[in-house]
Amino acid sequence: MGRKIRLGILGGGGDSLIGVLHRVASTMFDKYELVGGVFNPKWEDNIGFANELGIPTDRIYKDFDALVEEESKLPVDERMQVVSILTPNFLHFPMAKKLLENGFNVICEKPMTTTYEEAKILKETLQLAKTVFAVTYTYTGYPMVRQMREMIKNGDIGRVQKIDSQYYQGWINPIIHDKEKRSTTWRLDPEKSGISCCIGDIGTHAFDMIEYVSGHRVESILADLNYLYSDNKMDIDGTILVRCENQVKGVIRASQIATGEENNFTVQIYGDKAGLKWQQENPNYLYLLEDGQPLRVLKPGHSYNSEISLDGTKLPPGHPEGIFDSMGNIYKGVAKAINNEPYDHGEFPTIIDGARGVDFIEKAVESHQKGNVWVELDK
Amino acid sequence: MGRKIRLGILGGGGDSLIGVLHRVASTMFDKYELVGGVFNPKWEDNIGFANELGIPTDRIYKDFDALVEEESKLPVDERMQVVSILTPNFLHFPMAKKLLENGFNVICEKPMTTTYEEAKILKETLQLAKTVFAVTYTYTGYPMVRQMREMIKNGDIGRVQKIDSQYYQGWINPIIHDKEKRSTTWRLDPEKSGISCCIGDIGTHAFDMIEYVSGHRVESILADLNYLYSDNKMDIDGTILVRCENQVKGVIRASQIATGEENNFTVQIYGDKAGLKWQQENPNYLYLLEDGQPLRVLKPGHSYNSEISLDGTKLPPGHPEGIFDSMGNIYKGVAKAINNEPYDHGEFPTIIDGARGVDFIEKAVESHQKGNVWVELDK
Amino acid sequence: MGRKIRLGILGGGGDSLIGVLHRVASTMFDKYELVGGVFNPKWEDNIGFANELGIPTDRIYKDFDALVEEESKLPVDERMQVVSILTPNFLHFPMAKKLLENGFNVICEKPMTTTYEEAKILKETLQLAKTVFAVTYTYTGYPMVRQMREMIKNGDIGRVQKIDSQYYQGWINPIIHDKEKRSTTWRLDPEKSGISCCIGDIGTHAFDMIEYVSGHRVESILADLNYLYSDNKMDIDGTILVRCENQVKGVIRASQIATGEENNFTVQIYGDKAGLKWQQENPNYLYLLEDGQPLRVLKPGHSYNSEISLDGTKLPPGHPEGIFDSMGNIYKGVAKAINNEPYDHGEFPTIIDGARGVDFIEKAVESHQKGNVWVELDK
Amino acid sequence: MGRKIRLGILGGGGDSLIGVLHRVASTMFDKYELVGGVFNPKWEDNIGFANELGIPTDRIYKDFDALVEEESKLPVDERMQVVSILTPNFLHFPMAKKLLENGFNVICEKPMTTTYEEAKILKETLQLAKTVFAVTYTYTGYPMVRQMREMIKNGDIGRVQKIDSQYYQGWINPIIHDKEKRSTTWRLDPEKSGISCCIGDIGTHAFDMIEYVSGHRVESILADLNYLYSDNKMDIDGTILVRCENQVKGVIRASQIATGEENNFTVQIYGDKAGLKWQQENPNYLYLLEDGQPLRVLKPGHSYNSEISLDGTKLPPGHPEGIFDSMGNIYKGVAKAINNEPYDHGEFPTIIDGARGVDFIEKAVESHQKGNVWVELDK
Repeated sequence: MGRKIRLGILGGGGDSLIGVLHRVASTMFDKYELVGGVFNPKWEDNIGFANELGIPTDRIYKDFDALVEEESKLPVDERMQVVSILTPNFLHFPMAKKLLENGFNVICEKPMTTTYEEAKILKETLQLAKTVFAVTYTYTGYPMVRQMREMIKNGDIGRVQKIDSQYYQGWINPIIHDKEKRSTTWRLDPEKSGISCCIGDIGTHAFDMIEYVSGHRVESILADLNYLYSDNKMDIDGTILVRCENQVKGVIRASQIATGEENNFTVQIYGDKAGLKWQQENPNYLYLLEDGQPLRVLKPGHSYNSEISLDGTKLPPGHPEGIFDSMGNIYKGVAKAINNEPYDHGEFPTIIDGARGVDFIEKAVESHQKGNVWVELDK
Repeated sequence: MGRKIRLGILGGGGDSLIGVLHRVASTMFDKYELVGGVFNPKWEDNIGFANELGIPTDRIYKDFDALVEEESKLPVDERMQVVSILTPNFLHFPMAKKLLENGFNVICEKPMTTTYEEAKILKETLQLAKTVFAVTYTYTGYPMVRQMREMIKNGDIGRVQKIDSQYYQGWINPIIHDKEKRSTTWRLDPEKSGISCCIGDIGTHAFDMIEYVSGHRVESILADLNYLYSDNKMDIDGTILVRCENQVKGVIRASQIATGEENNFTVQIYGDKAGLKWQQENPNYLYLLEDGQPLRVLKPGHSYNSEISLDGTKLPPGHPEGIFDSMGNIYKGVAKAINNEPYDHGEFPTIIDGARGVDFIEKAVESHQKGNVWVELDK
Repeated sequence: MGRKIRLGILGGGGDSLIGVLHRVASTMFDKYELVGGVFNPKWEDNIGFANELGIPTDRIYKDFDALVEEESKLPVDERMQVVSILTPNFLHFPMAKKLLENGFNVICEKPMTTTYEEAKILKETLQLAKTVFAVTYTYTGYPMVRQMREMIKNGDIGRVQKIDSQYYQGWINPIIHDKEKRSTTWRLDPEKSGISCCIGDIGTHAFDMIEYVSGHRVESILADLNYLYSDNKMDIDGTILVRCENQVKGVIRASQIATGEENNFTVQIYGDKAGLKWQQENPNYLYLLEDGQPLRVLKPGHSYNSEISLDGTKLPPGHPEGIFDSMGNIYKGVAKAINNEPYDHGEFPTIIDGARGVDFIEKAVESHQKGNVWVELDK
Repeated sequence: MGRKIRLGILGGGGDSLIGVLHRVASTMFDKYELVGGVFNPKWEDNIGFANELGIPTDRIYKDFDALVEEESKLPVDERMQVVSILTPNFLHFPMAKKLLENGFNVICEKPMTTTYEEAKILKETLQLAKTVFAVTYTYTGYPMVRQMREMIKNGDIGRVQKIDSQYYQGWINPIIHDKEKRSTTWRLDPEKSGISCCIGDIGTHAFDMIEYVSGHRVESILADLNYLYSDNKMDIDGTILVRCENQVKGVIRASQIATGEENNFTVQIYGDKAGLKWQQENPNYLYLLEDGQPLRVLKPGHSYNSEISLDGTKLPPGHPEGIFDSMGNIYKGVAKAINNEPYDHGEFPTIIDGARGVDFIEKAVESHQKGNVWVELDK
């Protein structure tokens, strides 16, 4: 035995959805063993949850600091090898920093930090730590997203000339129109959620996605955010004009007031030879549009897909995999890195992607506040 | 007999696509009789085309001026009642003006004029003429577009809070990357096509559509256009931030370099109760998104649709009608107006819609040229 | 002038849907001029309807016999060249027969006759008459149906090995469960509607479609029909096992109790190289399935389509045409035949297709009544 | 700890797909712990695979008999509680029988046995054993399949009046046309695969599905199978007419020569009030068709779904789950039964469903061989 990577988890207890997602993802390729963590702030909930999961409670800790302290005492071949941070956003930074400083590999939920300043510090910390650090932009784990990236990299659509990404949800609609609710929801409280709600939560996914699939860095942005009510302190919608390297223009549209939308995240990249489109709610279809050719619909598991796409598909074509499998692929990539196996840069988002995402959020708010002007992103 | 409206057509000869569209549309409800016109500049082509259509050649004229002169001499009950202008854009204004001055009803292709100045003059001309004037924003004739408008008007989605329209095509892609082609295509020649290519041709449809369905006037815009090459004089892509009355924000995205896209025109309007979405390439589906409810897909011909939607559907559900039928509905509305029958304001776009569309084009270019700043539209 | 084909119409008056369909279809390519007919049994309705259409009333006749008599007296170059029969089914045969005997070209709605015996007599009549005879299986006019036929003919899917067609509607559901209604609806009265309701009305379309696109004749069938109630005299649902030439097996499924279905007519043909699928409610998509290849979606108007498909598309890709355009293509084909222009056998269904459809209906009922046994179709 | 159910697995080693599916499914709800099994016939592969999975090898046995013997010696609270049988079909029966006789709970892949005779013996064995027995008709675990069942049970579509299920694949196409391949593939060898290939493998899923969702037992069937070549001994396609209780008629269509199809499994049930449709390849959409109402599309995770559907959805709407999650739900149901928690009969298929499926296969072949006659299923 001993072959599985020893995983600890911070947060994700109770009926946390992100908790289920990470736990299931970690088991999918038989690469990880959950050995402990701190699932809940309250000790009883923490232990209770461990029992619910059916895992031993000897490595369930009373808090994060205890975890670091106790685990560090364990022999290297027993110690947690990687810790997943699923706690509220403002805790990502201090936890990640300390874990890195103590030599742990880290899997961190997005947004990686609440300020870009923190993100830069974390980058420096990692340079010293030399461990593995992944940020879970979950959607980049989908086989057809990976296929899209590979095809663009291989020149299948030619030179990229237009970028468009939409991330529309409607969940905040019943909250935002109620003065009481909008003033008490933590997601709309800058103290708890940082400077942005919509762009911070989902716009940043769209930003990461276009960089991931197009291979083009965003250089500057012009944002028009929407707060709907003057007493509301956080954006709940925004359209962001985007300029990338090679003079490529694009647009990111994000909303939490697109009433009735569930998780309608799409990305469309057009090159001078062809276009590619993908939609998160139907993740097993990749649309290739080429002038004068029939529309082609690529699906997972076929041999026409790239290696990295096929590596992320467990079953034959026609057996739909979903978002758990997408996250599972990210965990699989991290496992390769931890095990010092060869892996592709596209297999999991790194601290660079995480930091860029945070910079994007800050600059979007800055652009809006300055009156919808162009603001440059850090390089 | 004598019941049909006597129709003349300017342009649309040879294998003109817009010509087929208008002719078929005019016959669909047995309301019009094509009695003559000027189909082609060359006399032989003109006559030849009339013969091809199988219509008498006695009212085929050598040019526009002859048509006005000769038709005006005919008794009122023989004279053309309405003339459709399908000629190149720069001819719309002089032809429409003269026709109005001579008491004809007019159906005019979009863009109505090449400058907003002309559009305002035309509005004044019409005020004196008191005839019927329609601009053929074809897509507003689709039954499910009309249904969308009615539902929003009736409050079915609540207060409008977000607007998004996309009009993506890829047809200019093979032209734009060829220096020779892009310098010789008339669509990219400001002398022939006015100040805008992409926004002028399709962005304006998106603009009209959002005003049509949402019932909200656009008040100001911020445009980022794309010319791709420095020697290219016309925009071939653009994203336009939009602010409407009642503080509603939105975005219009138009492109002719969305490679592989055919005529991918969509509109999404979200209110505080629900959202509505429609796509031109599958025009018989209207999507109603409501929190906590199953997605509902409305289709033409069902009794749950509004009167104006049903009026534009000829066959029972499941028998797909298309773009000819959409234009046919606009002609049907115009026929009602000419025949002094009651009709709904939504049955055909008017000179006001036409003028607003031209103002939008000019302001989009202005916003872009000034460095992506907000510019107000005329009220 | 005189270039247009002089068309007469029998039936289709008032708010008849089939009437609109044929009239609009006839005008779409500027090939026909409606010169008269008998639209309604009652003289006032007949004349009233002609006025509504805005056509001269001098060739509106009091009844069918008068039409034949009077038109026959006219000089050849004034006489109706073709007459469309849109009357109730039982009138198709006597009208078609007399028209053929008097030298008229005929366009006949389906089912062509109410018995196969009549169909055979009609075939003999046509052999003497040597005029053009078309049966309007409307759906074979869709460009992508024609493309499907061409691709199969060209071997694009290899040797045909499986056939499946579905024609599901739900319209009879509110009638069939009401004892009063089901005993009084003419569609369920054998005296008025022949021996079959569902198979006669829509099953026959599916039968014609599979022969049209696959190029394979059906040789024998085994039918299990459904009447739902013992006092109901007509089938309202049925599944029919099918055996075609070259040992190809298949199935036709037709229903009028598929509650909520509108006009869900589909055809799927699989060969040993690939498969092709088409759905009437989204008629502008043809799906090509090939092992190990991305799904390809062909659409009308692209140069990759065959000549006969492109001939039936009036506008560029992305401008959806519909069922009127489909029927328009059939009328266009008939016009070519009447004008002695070259045309493809696939441009309109002939008397052979019409007769086979009637044989199919009779044999389906026979198979069912004999206890679901195999019955051979006439060759 | 000790809360997790101790699971053993037979088969599923190496790169077995069914192995991955069961293992991932078992972990999804933290209910099972894989403690051992026999993954491969060869000892080295068996142990190697256990190491790959990172599980202790002390309970990896050399063969099935050793597993039963050794596990039976363990104290009750250490012994495997349930064993999943993923071996080739002909081993299902002897393994299941012995496991039951020794008091184990069993999860068995389909088809449960290779003959109905065996199935009946197994039922008797289970009656004595009184343990839990589940057959993994995987697709019944999808939340929207469960929702479909609940809605029909609740009368949402009224009285069921028509049933249609399709299971089309194309995978055998490249094999069947090659004389060499078709004579050597084990799936086409009756010695190894029982009496049916297509009906046995996928037709049986369709059969189980219609009984599951409609709540109607199939009473008799008439099958027309297809072998394509006279030297081919196993059906690779078939259409089966179906008669259910309450005189409901239907049809099951299954094929492995539907070239290009992946796993196109659909079910459509129509009642006298509405219809419901579901497709396996897009499993998160359930279509509700009601006369005169917009089409409604139900999706997982919404509160409008039934309890059993919601119980099988881990994430909020818009986060697509797939086939692993479907199987996970079946394992979750089995866990409830093993833990003596309350559960719904629809949470996992039982031995009755398994036995019916085997009876169906045998009767389909019998019907075909007797010349496509009606054959009754056992009650």
